[in-house]
Amino acid sequence: MTVGIIGGGNFGSAVSKIVGQNIIDEGICKKVNHEQVLMWVFEELIEGERLTDIINQRHENVKYLKGIALPHNIVASPSLAEVAGADLLVFVLPEQFLPRTLAEMKPHIRPGTKAISLIKGLVTDAAGAPALISGLIERELGLGEGGCAVMMGANLAGEIAAGQLCEATIGCKDIETGELFKALFHCSNFRVEVRQDVAGIELCGCLKNVIALGAGFCDGVGAGENTKAALIRRGLLEMRAFCRMFYGDGIEEGTFLESCGVADLVVTCYGGRNRRCGQHFAQQVLEEYETDSDFDTVAPVAETPLTRKGATVVPRRDIDKGSELASAEAKCSAHWAVLEEQLLGGQRLAGLPAARAVQVVLDRAQAVDKFPIMSTVYKIAFESRDPRDIIESIKL
Amino acid sequence: MTVGIIGGGNFGSAVSKIVGQNIIDEGICKKVNHEQVLMWVFEELIEGERLTDIINQRHENVKYLKGIALPHNIVASPSLAEVAGADLLVFVLPEQFLPRTLAEMKPHIRPGTKAISLIKGLVTDAAGAPALISGLIERELGLGEGGCAVMMGANLAGEIAAGQLCEATIGCKDIETGELFKALFHCSNFRVEVRQDVAGIELCGCLKNVIALGAGFCDGVGAGENTKAALIRRGLLEMRAFCRMFYGDGIEEGTFLESCGVADLVVTCYGGRNRRCGQHFAQQVLEEYETDSDFDTVAPVAETPLTRKGATVVPRRDIDKGSELASAEAKCSAHWAVLEEQLLGGQRLAGLPAARAVQVVLDRAQAVDKFPIMSTVYKIAFESRDPRDIIESIKL
Repeated sequence: MTVGIIGGGNFGSAVSKIVGQNIIDEGICKKVNHEQVLMWVFEELIEGERLTDIINQRHENVKYLKGIALPHNIVASPSLAEVAGADLLVFVLPEQFLPRTLAEMKPHIRPGTKAISLIKGLVTDAAGAPALISGLIERELGLGEGGCAVMMGANLAGEIAAGQLCEATIGCKDIETGELFKALFHCSNFRVEVRQDVAGIELCGCLKNVIALGAGFCDGVGAGENTKAALIRRGLLEMRAFCRMFYGDGIEEGTFLESCGVADLVVTCYGGRNRRCGQHFAQQVLEEYETDSDFDTVAPVAETPLTRKGATVVPRRDIDKGSELASAEAKCSAHWAVLEEQLLGGQRLAGLPAARAVQVVLDRAQAVDKFPIMSTVYKIAFESRDPRDIIESIKL
Repeated sequence: MTVGIIGGGNFGSAVSKIVGQNIIDEGICKKVNHEQVLMWVFEELIEGERLTDIINQRHENVKYLKGIALPHNIVASPSLAEVAGADLLVFVLPEQFLPRTLAEMKPHIRPGTKAISLIKGLVTDAAGAPALISGLIERELGLGEGGCAVMMGANLAGEIAAGQLCEATIGCKDIETGELFKALFHCSNFRVEVRQDVAGIELCGCLKNVIALGAGFCDGVGAGENTKAALIRRGLLEMRAFCRMFYGDGIEEGTFLESCGVADLVVTCYGGRNRRCGQHFAQQVLEEYETDSDFDTVAPVAETPLTRKGATVVPRRDIDKGSELASAEAKCSAHWAVLEEQLLGGQRLAGLPAARAVQVVLDRAQAVDKFPIMSTVYKIAFESRDPRDIIESIKL
């Protein structure tokens, strides 16, 4: 039985270190007796050398996980066709690359292949209902229902790579397969628990990024620690309500106290990059209110307590609602693009497409009012709502 | 119906601002129609003036809540006998002053008086079983069972006083009394929810300080964000297990997702003073390992990864176990006293007596092994255990 890792970025490389070392140290189990682990890496040239060659010669991903020695059994490959032939596939790449990647892998998938997704994102079906990424992988690769597990948790990649203790949660319908995947990842400093609530676990991984944008807005408008804790708590309740609304009784209460729930949410709301970019976004919007003559707020900013009710940005121009929103969206998107460039070196912020997908889903379900925090995050991020409204959303 | 606040420190003064303003703004309800709120303040002289006089003349507690205007209906009194005659009593003072305070109040309590405790602490009965502070107040003042409610939550006093949004949880067996107390506190920026799980809510307020010491130890030994999130998550599970072990079926699952549960825990583990002092304590112990020839560790510190197993401090002197522990305890207590003096101006750290009381309780119940985080916090704090063992405790 062979293992293939799809994705050789920061998180993928950190995960490869765990998996590779685990196979060397423990043999994992009788089933995974093939020591070599193939890792698909999007090929690029680093000072004239191919990244896959560098990884295979120096055992270091110099671009995405600099300074960390990878185990010798990790073999980088630029060929999706080659890696797709593994028996166990670990998906750890950004959501936006997934459709193309799956299409290219499909002809090379072997019967009986099992997959596990570490991808945080939310896709919607044609009717605007939420769809799981694990389900998308199952369908596109023909793995059958339950053929793709998930793993989520409080897992900042740099700390995993540095061998700091962390926990994760595997969601897998089939307990035996879940235990097999646990054997692949679980070790002294990476503690894994297995549950069957695939939908709840996967959705936690995505929705927490939306709440983290809200936590960043809180920080950006100068809210206190009590307020941020209230946002995190009520955000967790909205995450649970969202899961229950769309996946009903399959959602387990205990999921939200696993690493994928409260722990990942807390890490992301205090340390993650969604929080950080959200803070910068809100700060810059407030600065703009004070200097930009093109915008005004219902109440003058200087006289407005942080917690006043319902002040929203009103462009002075007299334009109709539709084009006003389109203009706000274009302006916001441009603002985010600048932040992604400045703060993330051009990488995409996972919380933004997640917030948008959540809003689409809630809109179709006519349930926006039941999720005041998530929908306020969307409106601040894409409709030029006053970022201070994040505080009001906690009261609703 | 009159309201009396027992305690005029930092938290008490912040709470008096909420209660006083609420009575002025809302009249609260027909029952609380007496506008004046008496606040018992431990009398002290500030530059020759009595603190109660200063508060009543300047409407500011210049010693404990400087710069915040108190509502004019807050009247400071140095007389416990006078304040004890109120119909609704709000207890908000440090645990260690409670027994003396209750004894002095008892003769002046009127029939039908209701109390609410905001005190975070854990007392033990003669058999070493945990006892609630709300229960102690009920018994000592003869209020009858259910006569004392509790209020806990993510409530840093300075932020409450500044009018920042926060949430709190009231625990009250009797719903009607609970709603009366809610009316006393609930307002636009102080959001209160009422539950009947008095024991769970009160214990959360105390136990979170023990976990926060552990979070401080994590920070002090350089653990990462993933690790700290794992500690917080597993700490929350230990809090729940502790409540269930000693208060059984009365404990509600939902309590731990209220403000008194996850929100207060998060605030305390990121921002509170137990965390801060815990960090300093652990850092100083590690520095001592490197310089003090009187101590040695099982493995040399320099060669020891943060996460190695089971290294504990072994004094080189050949002394028996009992006096070794006594010596460790004396040394640790002295260390904490210095930190309390340096970092808190001599105020006491609530997590320390809580950690000790929890350990006594677990010891008697022969359940220490089921609470690895809380008992490791105790051993690090009072038995000179290596602070890096806090990381191992997360795995147990």
